[in-house]
Amino acid sequence: MVEILRIGHRIARDKRISTHVCLVARAFGADKLYYSGQKDSEMENSVFKIVKDFGGSFEVKYVKDYFKLIKDKKKKGFKIVHLTVYGESFKVISNFKDENILFIVGGEKVPAEIYQLVDYNISIGNQPHSEVAALGVVLYEYFGKNILSKKFKNSKLKIIPQKKGKKILGK
Amino acid sequence: MVEILRIGHRIARDKRISTHVCLVARAFGADKLYYSGQKDSEMENSVFKIVKDFGGSFEVKYVKDYFKLIKDKKKKGFKIVHLTVYGESFKVISNFKDENILFIVGGEKVPAEIYQLVDYNISIGNQPHSEVAALGVVLYEYFGKNILSKKFKNSKLKIIPQKKGKKILGK
Repeated sequence: MVEILRIGHRIARDKRISTHVCLVARAFGADKLYYSGQKDSEMENSVFKIVKDFGGSFEVKYVKDYFKLIKDKKKKGFKIVHLTVYGESFKVISNFKDENILFIVGGEKVPAEIYQLVDYNISIGNQPHSEVAALGVVLYEYFGKNILSKKFKNSKLKIIPQKKGKKILGK
Repeated sequence: MVEILRIGHRIARDKRISTHVCLVARAFGADKLYYSGQKDSEMENSVFKIVKDFGGSFEVKYVKDYFKLIKDKKKKGFKIVHLTVYGESFKVISNFKDENILFIVGGEKVPAEIYQLVDYNISIGNQPHSEVAALGVVLYEYFGKNILSKKFKNSKLKIIPQKKGKKILGK
């Protein structure tokens, strides 16, 4: 089970970034995303629409108290892995095999306690970039390239790769 | 030389996504990003500030006529590679070696002519996700993992990887 926790969502500022975080989580093999900050039904619905159209069982769930979530997941044996530009190299994930993992993806301001509470603070390089790309690369490394050919059950729409142009079945 | 073209930037909607595209381009080794759509000095400045603080010579440049840019780059021998969820597998890039490449990253609506004009339409999987993650993964694959340890010249700030907490030199 691989789950994501997105901290500190702000509707006005983060709507599209958080939506991208959700879609990357789903496309790159995660099972579920929790988010904290402001509850955003519009964002949830836009992800839910993609799940309905393109299949699978990816879920998005709002949590108010994400410290509690982290502690609960720890008790259940999840590894807690915080993606941060300040962390050690993400090469450490090559030691993880078939584990339950909660990846934490920060917003603008991650409380100092999080750095202490988690099992790993890992960085996808130490240059400022993007939590969207960081999550993509870390899941890609964790699951391997074939994750991108993952089949999603009960899809209504299916994109057929093309050298030129677009082809969608079911539309 | 690896350059990026971001098509169709809209200030209200895309400011943060386009900023993330720029920062990922820089952090994952690209030299320059062109963007079309609405000129956005605030976005340009926020990227310029990162370059000033963290070093290197990454540039962002607005272009009005991106078809002209693509044609000019073609004439100069650049491979033109469009990242799109509709494209063929991005494994094709493993054949590229030390080339001049222009990667095109779409916004909401990419004109049909682009699919025809480019040399390759490639996808990072055929599930909807994010141009930010797609660009990250494709540059990561193209340059290899070591790109994330790339040194940037003339940096004022430098993040030192930590297991717990944050360490920035120069602040």
